[in-house]
Amino acid sequence: VNIGILGAGQLARMMVLAGRAMGLEFRTLDPKEDSSVGDLCERCVEPYESPAALEWLREGADVVTFDFENVPTRVLHELAQQLPVRPGAAALEATQDRLHEKQLMQRLGIPVAPFRAVETRAELTSAIQELGLPLILKTRRGGYDGKGQVLLREAGDAGKYWDTIAGVPLIAEGFVSFEREISIVAVRGVDGDTRFYRIGENVHDSGILWISRCRPNDPSQAEAESIAASLMAELDYVGVITLEFFETPGGLLVNEFAPRVHNSGHWSIEGSVTSQFENHLRAICGLPLGSTRPLGLSAMLNLVGELPPRGALLEVPGSHVHYYGKRPRRGRKLGHVTVQAESERELERRIARLQSRIVPPGGRRELPRPEEPRRA
Amino acid sequence: VNIGILGAGQLARMMVLAGRAMGLEFRTLDPKEDSSVGDLCERCVEPYESPAALEWLREGADVVTFDFENVPTRVLHELAQQLPVRPGAAALEATQDRLHEKQLMQRLGIPVAPFRAVETRAELTSAIQELGLPLILKTRRGGYDGKGQVLLREAGDAGKYWDTIAGVPLIAEGFVSFEREISIVAVRGVDGDTRFYRIGENVHDSGILWISRCRPNDPSQAEAESIAASLMAELDYVGVITLEFFETPGGLLVNEFAPRVHNSGHWSIEGSVTSQFENHLRAICGLPLGSTRPLGLSAMLNLVGELPPRGALLEVPGSHVHYYGKRPRRGRKLGHVTVQAESERELERRIARLQSRIVPPGGRRELPRPEEPRRA
Repeated sequence: VNIGILGAGQLARMMVLAGRAMGLEFRTLDPKEDSSVGDLCERCVEPYESPAALEWLREGADVVTFDFENVPTRVLHELAQQLPVRPGAAALEATQDRLHEKQLMQRLGIPVAPFRAVETRAELTSAIQELGLPLILKTRRGGYDGKGQVLLREAGDAGKYWDTIAGVPLIAEGFVSFEREISIVAVRGVDGDTRFYRIGENVHDSGILWISRCRPNDPSQAEAESIAASLMAELDYVGVITLEFFETPGGLLVNEFAPRVHNSGHWSIEGSVTSQFENHLRAICGLPLGSTRPLGLSAMLNLVGELPPRGALLEVPGSHVHYYGKRPRRGRKLGHVTVQAESERELERRIARLQSRIVPPGGRRELPRPEEPRRA
Repeated sequence: VNIGILGAGQLARMMVLAGRAMGLEFRTLDPKEDSSVGDLCERCVEPYESPAALEWLREGADVVTFDFENVPTRVLHELAQQLPVRPGAAALEATQDRLHEKQLMQRLGIPVAPFRAVETRAELTSAIQELGLPLILKTRRGGYDGKGQVLLREAGDAGKYWDTIAGVPLIAEGFVSFEREISIVAVRGVDGDTRFYRIGENVHDSGILWISRCRPNDPSQAEAESIAASLMAELDYVGVITLEFFETPGGLLVNEFAPRVHNSGHWSIEGSVTSQFENHLRAICGLPLGSTRPLGLSAMLNLVGELPPRGALLEVPGSHVHYYGKRPRRGRKLGHVTVQAESERELERRIARLQSRIVPPGGRRELPRPEEPRRA
């Protein structure tokens, strides 16, 4: 089976590594020269819209998928006329626009933070009146890892930040006071078979995911699964999907979803019977899904901006390193380390040992600083 | 870290897949065009002795290893003058000649089947007198998967088979009546740290490994570990080593050892915290070794000669497929499937389901035939 991937970042890289072990073949299309896939499969460096590049992709693929959600949906629609594109363009469209994403959730009865569409200064003023402050203002399209958003704490902030973000359609989201940020990775096969991974509890640093950990018998597991199931059924979804939630005293609110394998599911490479990458490939190839049963307790720490020597990490028992072959740059995800343990106490000890050997995403600090204020 | 591999078969392929996930880079040298490594790393198709090829390998490598044991040792000695070769030429030399291998075991007090060196018809006659019949006659060098050996059952067989095998140095081995064929994969780091995998119980078909399974609390585990430890210490071994044993009522006899990752350890990819491939790389790179703790009960079935559709195998719960990207040919190892379960009973059920979907190494048969006579 030949698989075409739109995008050639580290998610594509890990798909290719998982898939080539199964004897699957790949080609990727990505406009960026500096790819993580490197020479692991055939690749083409061209704009997504290039007709010749799309023809090349189609020729060498039985099914097409993508490794990030900002691929032009027009391209997916075009490809879908000739071969299966999984997950489909509908899922991508729903997530590319934060307003549509929230509206979809509302339609499905899935709780989200209160929101308003904002295109003008006047609309922002009424959003502040209706939703109150603090309030978070985001671009409806684009933006990731905390980019494309500002937090308005007081009335004066509207004027102060308006110019930095205005000019494109925006969405204002009411402030949500939450206990934890969690995410669930789920997978659905061509036949509708659905599996869920253990919930990951996520800690960010400077807007970038820093640590994901899985707790045994997480109290939000069942609720997260039920929300993911209804979203996947609605989208007739095929492949891996990831939902991010705020856990509030009143229950889970969906923050956003990603129609793809996800950073917060990297622990599954060693921490689950079948990794999110293998299961995504099984799903899009129409193969039976693999078990998502956890193997012990797991965590994942991102390596951002610089890579420690492998030996310093592998000294910590239960750890495995994943380096993406990317050139180091501040704020860039260069790799991650997974770690497993048999007890929560031992897992926390190992996470702490790893943390002391890794520069956090926001860079080195003289003193540990208090956690970022939590916001929605 | 850059790794040079002599040989580019499926063992090199699985090393490369494990290593690239860790961000290691590889180049391979192998005279065969039809390699399993394919485009997964830089490779050179030249004789092992080619000075230009060896220069190319050296340039792009911080350490050199090999994926099979018939590399000319002269090449390893030459490379070892400029960079570490792990495991070393000593291990390779010991295993390339079955007579030297047996003599090494004897020196270490490790039990082996009775043997005699045979170069002439007269020596064969006295070997038969001393060791009795049946007796197995093997070439001292070369030969694998049952090739390069004949079984002499009665006196007349000596004359009958002499011409098919004579002309090269031979070894005659006395017949050993054994209960099981087992193997152990072990790994030793640069610092002498040593880990052992769970014993695999091996079933062959037409001289080719067909099924390896791991039993919980295998009664021969401790004895196998102790033999492997003394051999590794003697050779100051670095990397993964595999020892094959006959289990007899009097204890274990070493049949042979392989100074490399091994087919009977493929179950470790999903069945152990750290696979044999990752641990071999960790060892030769001087990194801390990973845990060899088993994850449930495991088995591995080889896919020889033809590949079933992936879906037929993946329907069996707990299974994962590994296809090597090789052209199908009768008797050729094209892939394998691993399977895990929580109980022996469930594991046996899953093995039986997989067996019914796989052509055995010796080919399809109309009726199940009785097991091959066991021989040493």
